[in-house]
Amino acid sequence: MSKEIIHTYKNIRQQTEAICKPLQIEDYSIQVVQFASPAKWHLAHTTWFFETFILKNYVQNYITFDADFNFLFNSYYNNVGDRILQTNRGNMSRPSTDKIYEYRAYVDAKIQELLSAISDTKIIELVTLGLNHEQQHQELLVTDIKYMLGHNPLFPVYDEDFNLIKDTNSNTESIKIKAGIYKIGHQGDDFCYDNELGVHKVYVDDFEINNHLVTNGEYLEFMASGAYSDFNLWLDEGWSWVNKNHIKSPLYWHNIEGEWHYYSLSGLQKVDKNAILSHINYYEANAYAEWKGMRLPTEFEWEIAAQQLHWGKRWEWTNSAYLPYPNFEKANGAVGEYNGKFMSNKMVLRGASVATSQNHSRPTYRNFFNPTESWQFTGIRLVK
Amino acid sequence: MSKEIIHTYKNIRQQTEAICKPLQIEDYSIQVVQFASPAKWHLAHTTWFFETFILKNYVQNYITFDADFNFLFNSYYNNVGDRILQTNRGNMSRPSTDKIYEYRAYVDAKIQELLSAISDTKIIELVTLGLNHEQQHQELLVTDIKYMLGHNPLFPVYDEDFNLIKDTNSNTESIKIKAGIYKIGHQGDDFCYDNELGVHKVYVDDFEINNHLVTNGEYLEFMASGAYSDFNLWLDEGWSWVNKNHIKSPLYWHNIEGEWHYYSLSGLQKVDKNAILSHINYYEANAYAEWKGMRLPTEFEWEIAAQQLHWGKRWEWTNSAYLPYPNFEKANGAVGEYNGKFMSNKMVLRGASVATSQNHSRPTYRNFFNPTESWQFTGIRLVK
Amino acid sequence: MSKEIIHTYKNIRQQTEAICKPLQIEDYSIQVVQFASPAKWHLAHTTWFFETFILKNYVQNYITFDADFNFLFNSYYNNVGDRILQTNRGNMSRPSTDKIYEYRAYVDAKIQELLSAISDTKIIELVTLGLNHEQQHQELLVTDIKYMLGHNPLFPVYDEDFNLIKDTNSNTESIKIKAGIYKIGHQGDDFCYDNELGVHKVYVDDFEINNHLVTNGEYLEFMASGAYSDFNLWLDEGWSWVNKNHIKSPLYWHNIEGEWHYYSLSGLQKVDKNAILSHINYYEANAYAEWKGMRLPTEFEWEIAAQQLHWGKRWEWTNSAYLPYPNFEKANGAVGEYNGKFMSNKMVLRGASVATSQNHSRPTYRNFFNPTESWQFTGIRLVK
Amino acid sequence: MSKEIIHTYKNIRQQTEAICKPLQIEDYSIQVVQFASPAKWHLAHTTWFFETFILKNYVQNYITFDADFNFLFNSYYNNVGDRILQTNRGNMSRPSTDKIYEYRAYVDAKIQELLSAISDTKIIELVTLGLNHEQQHQELLVTDIKYMLGHNPLFPVYDEDFNLIKDTNSNTESIKIKAGIYKIGHQGDDFCYDNELGVHKVYVDDFEINNHLVTNGEYLEFMASGAYSDFNLWLDEGWSWVNKNHIKSPLYWHNIEGEWHYYSLSGLQKVDKNAILSHINYYEANAYAEWKGMRLPTEFEWEIAAQQLHWGKRWEWTNSAYLPYPNFEKANGAVGEYNGKFMSNKMVLRGASVATSQNHSRPTYRNFFNPTESWQFTGIRLVK
Repeated sequence: MSKEIIHTYKNIRQQTEAICKPLQIEDYSIQVVQFASPAKWHLAHTTWFFETFILKNYVQNYITFDADFNFLFNSYYNNVGDRILQTNRGNMSRPSTDKIYEYRAYVDAKIQELLSAISDTKIIELVTLGLNHEQQHQELLVTDIKYMLGHNPLFPVYDEDFNLIKDTNSNTESIKIKAGIYKIGHQGDDFCYDNELGVHKVYVDDFEINNHLVTNGEYLEFMASGAYSDFNLWLDEGWSWVNKNHIKSPLYWHNIEGEWHYYSLSGLQKVDKNAILSHINYYEANAYAEWKGMRLPTEFEWEIAAQQLHWGKRWEWTNSAYLPYPNFEKANGAVGEYNGKFMSNKMVLRGASVATSQNHSRPTYRNFFNPTESWQFTGIRLVK
Repeated sequence: MSKEIIHTYKNIRQQTEAICKPLQIEDYSIQVVQFASPAKWHLAHTTWFFETFILKNYVQNYITFDADFNFLFNSYYNNVGDRILQTNRGNMSRPSTDKIYEYRAYVDAKIQELLSAISDTKIIELVTLGLNHEQQHQELLVTDIKYMLGHNPLFPVYDEDFNLIKDTNSNTESIKIKAGIYKIGHQGDDFCYDNELGVHKVYVDDFEINNHLVTNGEYLEFMASGAYSDFNLWLDEGWSWVNKNHIKSPLYWHNIEGEWHYYSLSGLQKVDKNAILSHINYYEANAYAEWKGMRLPTEFEWEIAAQQLHWGKRWEWTNSAYLPYPNFEKANGAVGEYNGKFMSNKMVLRGASVATSQNHSRPTYRNFFNPTESWQFTGIRLVK
Repeated sequence: MSKEIIHTYKNIRQQTEAICKPLQIEDYSIQVVQFASPAKWHLAHTTWFFETFILKNYVQNYITFDADFNFLFNSYYNNVGDRILQTNRGNMSRPSTDKIYEYRAYVDAKIQELLSAISDTKIIELVTLGLNHEQQHQELLVTDIKYMLGHNPLFPVYDEDFNLIKDTNSNTESIKIKAGIYKIGHQGDDFCYDNELGVHKVYVDDFEINNHLVTNGEYLEFMASGAYSDFNLWLDEGWSWVNKNHIKSPLYWHNIEGEWHYYSLSGLQKVDKNAILSHINYYEANAYAEWKGMRLPTEFEWEIAAQQLHWGKRWEWTNSAYLPYPNFEKANGAVGEYNGKFMSNKMVLRGASVATSQNHSRPTYRNFFNPTESWQFTGIRLVK
Repeated sequence: MSKEIIHTYKNIRQQTEAICKPLQIEDYSIQVVQFASPAKWHLAHTTWFFETFILKNYVQNYITFDADFNFLFNSYYNNVGDRILQTNRGNMSRPSTDKIYEYRAYVDAKIQELLSAISDTKIIELVTLGLNHEQQHQELLVTDIKYMLGHNPLFPVYDEDFNLIKDTNSNTESIKIKAGIYKIGHQGDDFCYDNELGVHKVYVDDFEINNHLVTNGEYLEFMASGAYSDFNLWLDEGWSWVNKNHIKSPLYWHNIEGEWHYYSLSGLQKVDKNAILSHINYYEANAYAEWKGMRLPTEFEWEIAAQQLHWGKRWEWTNSAYLPYPNFEKANGAVGEYNGKFMSNKMVLRGASVATSQNHSRPTYRNFFNPTESWQFTGIRLVK
């Protein structure tokens, strides 16, 4: 058991560093926008998580790597004390990147030591939570790096081979689900987040859900129809967002001499009409569905249909607000701040994306973002 | 039929003017904050609704009262053209209040003429919509007047006899509802809004809902426990709201020499511990429920229990986001902008308040506001 | 002496009310923008000045008209206590306009009583200061009313006969002044503000100053040359102001079907090319001078040339920052807050305008505004 | 001649790189606040200046180092085209620091080649301008680095030996200057900026100027007197600045367990009472003078007294607004944007600071900043 968890621990921790391989030192510290953190911060914060919730509590006479790091690398845990403002994460050239890698090595050694010595369910649970937490940050690392490089006028390449997935799923049939009562929520003993728990019944009516996600080509038709100027397609707040920000296309798209391009992690390239649409926010997803005379699935419909769907290529906007399941229970203390406190003004996304870590998602997984956000790899699946 | 509708028309239109009776001329034009419009604007906008959607379409050679009024008194109907910015409604000393009353008289005469002459279902439907619309604005009139006077350092009295309702409902028993499939949504031929339509089934589990609303006395205990400083009780966005705005009590509450007072429409007075709590926002409602170890009802639970509840004293925050029912259909054109486009980042409230016009609410009625808003008469009902 | 001052007092106080004659009740309370106060506020604040600095100090057992008024109608005197935020002046429908007129009558009676009974130099000095203060507010009243009505989409007429002054000064000759040492600042016993005091010598070089002010016709040429798009003409902050606010013409100008109009107090009308240009800010004045290859006068040049100039039609931007004269002395207490504390980031204007009260200006008078402001009647005189 | 200029060129260019020696790679790209640019940007922008104004114009078939750099490293020259927003300078991890050093080497080689080959007065003038420009950026480099490190919670040391200068000038006598006409402005053939030109006469009255600058100890007395809470000492905009930003001490000062410390480039240390006060803005300087019953010198008084003053330790706030001298002439094109366009809402500082490059300042040098800015080494000299 401890061998297995140590093995997993090593793999996942190394995977985070592998993501940073193509970076130059200068890339580690930049924060372009409040919601996207510097790579250095992700590397440190995920490490701080293990130090704070495990080493400080379970290792006798544990010597903190650096007393200042709690202030610098706490993300949003009020129970763990004051922290640097999120907007200021990019102001910190120090500690240096090297120092952060030292920090990682220090904590990694201590965790492995602890896991070798002790086989305590509570510790293993916390390590598992920390690893899932780290996997979430791996995805954020990729998307935050993309945001930083994609907003650099030089459009630097991150990795020549980081390809956009094409929609090889030419199967355009849809799946029909019968009305009835279904069980929703995570069952079994595998790891899941607290927001997936509380298995409960929901009634859903007959519905028919597409097996394929919307492609760039389809979205270009929507754009060509004048959709970004047609208020009737948009939610009121979506229409304000379009106008205030002069939106005319998805994030990362640039019209260069009449032709649509987008920034990808392999550089600036022409929009591939057959590839799956990405980087749209909830308002855009909703407007597209409106234009098609269809709608987005609820998160329950999605979960019920999940077994039959080809999913995993893009986070898919649902038309469900992120709210607690019946009987949702928040853990005590800092760990309880993980999910529950974000349950307002957010919409649920289901599925997984090209940036999601392997084995990290599942049919009951509830991802959530503000309706304005589109820097994740987010797409559209429609329902009739 | 036409006699009846004319009678109703007159009553409701007069009721709007009756609400304004206690106002001084200066009170009609002031806008203290973006979301609260001047009384003059409400008087004109409700009239514009009848002129625009009925008179202009159904009266031959109709002569518009004033060509500028479409720009001045359109609220948010993109389909009806440009309009003054919502923030600028309070910048307009002209047209004068007298002019607006002339406008009302002019349109009232024309509508009654039309209703006497023609008995067309479509017209009656639109008049009915206009009257329901006017009733909604009657409630806004009351709450916007309260907001304006309650933010005047002189705390002027609107009406000596506008009393807060006390919680005479000493019955503290709760109602138990059995798990099962229930029908949700408006049935029958009576008027309802489009957002109530699409009767559909939902499954709910066993629940137990309080018959009484939280009182000021109960909320004072919550405050006394230090709730406004305890981040563990709050949603993340709620905690930001508390801190950014230095919130320490509900809207309109003032601590005067150690004693809590609130502004009411009959002036500044001591907080009555037995009266029903009002003017709290969703974040406060949610935090209170958290503190009690209970929760807010979903809008479905509320609707299912409605027959057995004493309701109608305060709008009650539910824990349901304002989203379309299955099979929700938006009307074409301007009338379709009435409800659907606001379905993001809002929470549903059920019930009615002391300011709600008579016969305007019903068990299926879906009110909705941003989680930060509390200038309506809003309260808390809890569920176990 | 006391008869004379009472006479003057009555005249000036009545003049303020005469300015408000054409207003409707609704016009009295509106505040469109922070820097422009409601008419009601001006009426009350000027009265508060007499009550606070004279009646409260020099009348035994004086009974304050209303204890709340100190909070409501103090403008910026920190020494006199807390006050309502400037942005909130327009939120107050109460006290009513009638109440304010009562307040004026009450204070007027008390002041006249005091002046009849006592002949104390200090009191007469303070009354004189109060009257000059009131005259300054008379000008603000006119310009604030213009701002409110000019931003109403209906462009209401204030007074049919409030004409713009034409440039009847066809004399285009300029005045030549010889280099030398000149005395600057107010001499003699007449009233002046503290900022004019401290007569002192300045050396100025030879200069030649225009006797006429720039006309609308001349400014139209500047506009036609593309000046609002030519960064080389503008100060850096001026260029930011132009771009941020999409400025293409002076305040109150509207291009209606290809023809330039402006709002005047007698309504919307075509721009009169022969009339003197007005409502431009310092950045525009500076850019115009740059375009002409000339420059604005310093306030010293202006004062030296004043005897020979036709002035009094428009406040004239100088190229002098508003700073203390050598030996400037601030009075103690609240009265000392009158001028000195505003001596940063403002430019001096000299002259007077059509809205300036009779006998209120003089060659040594130093008016001052932010470089962005143009809601006063402000124009351009050039120097070589 | 060309040997000499090449020698100077090398020295000054190397000095810029020497300032960056103590930096870690991560330090080069961070921008904490809009007005402080990343070190990398300074290194590149000063190089861009030589490339743009000299190499592109005077070297035949010059091959631009990188076509994108004009967009990235133009600061504010509208005549040279579009540029990245100033706020976004810190968003650019690329081009890398190494690349920027390559850019410097490339341009340095070309400039030296050009200077060896051609002896053209115009070129030498432009190189001289470029070197003075670079020296200005050297000072900004130091102060921007200080700002970045001083806002890092770790308070990193830049250079252990970067000492604050103590006020060894125990001579507390003042200098008396007689009234009369004096010449102001740069004379002779040495380099100076266009804003120093236009020698002209000014008349000044008798004045007495302190030979020593205010020390930390003296400023602590001002603080201890409650000055940051006494509105009577402050200009109106200064008082707003104090309150809005909750200012209680100079920039970089921290009260740690009751004792005042400040961040210096050699780390956090206790405030040295004998050292010269630094990092205060104009409002603070003005308030201090008010508290002392003295005043700041005008820039003319300062220049007249300069020969007899010990100066060069701190930039000294004057009470003169930054405005053009009589006969000020702006050069044509981009070079003309150097100084003139900033002549609004800024105050003149005279002297030099510990961060000013050697031989860069002189008695006629006019430095200028917004009254709110204090990240330069700025101090106070008083006048009676």
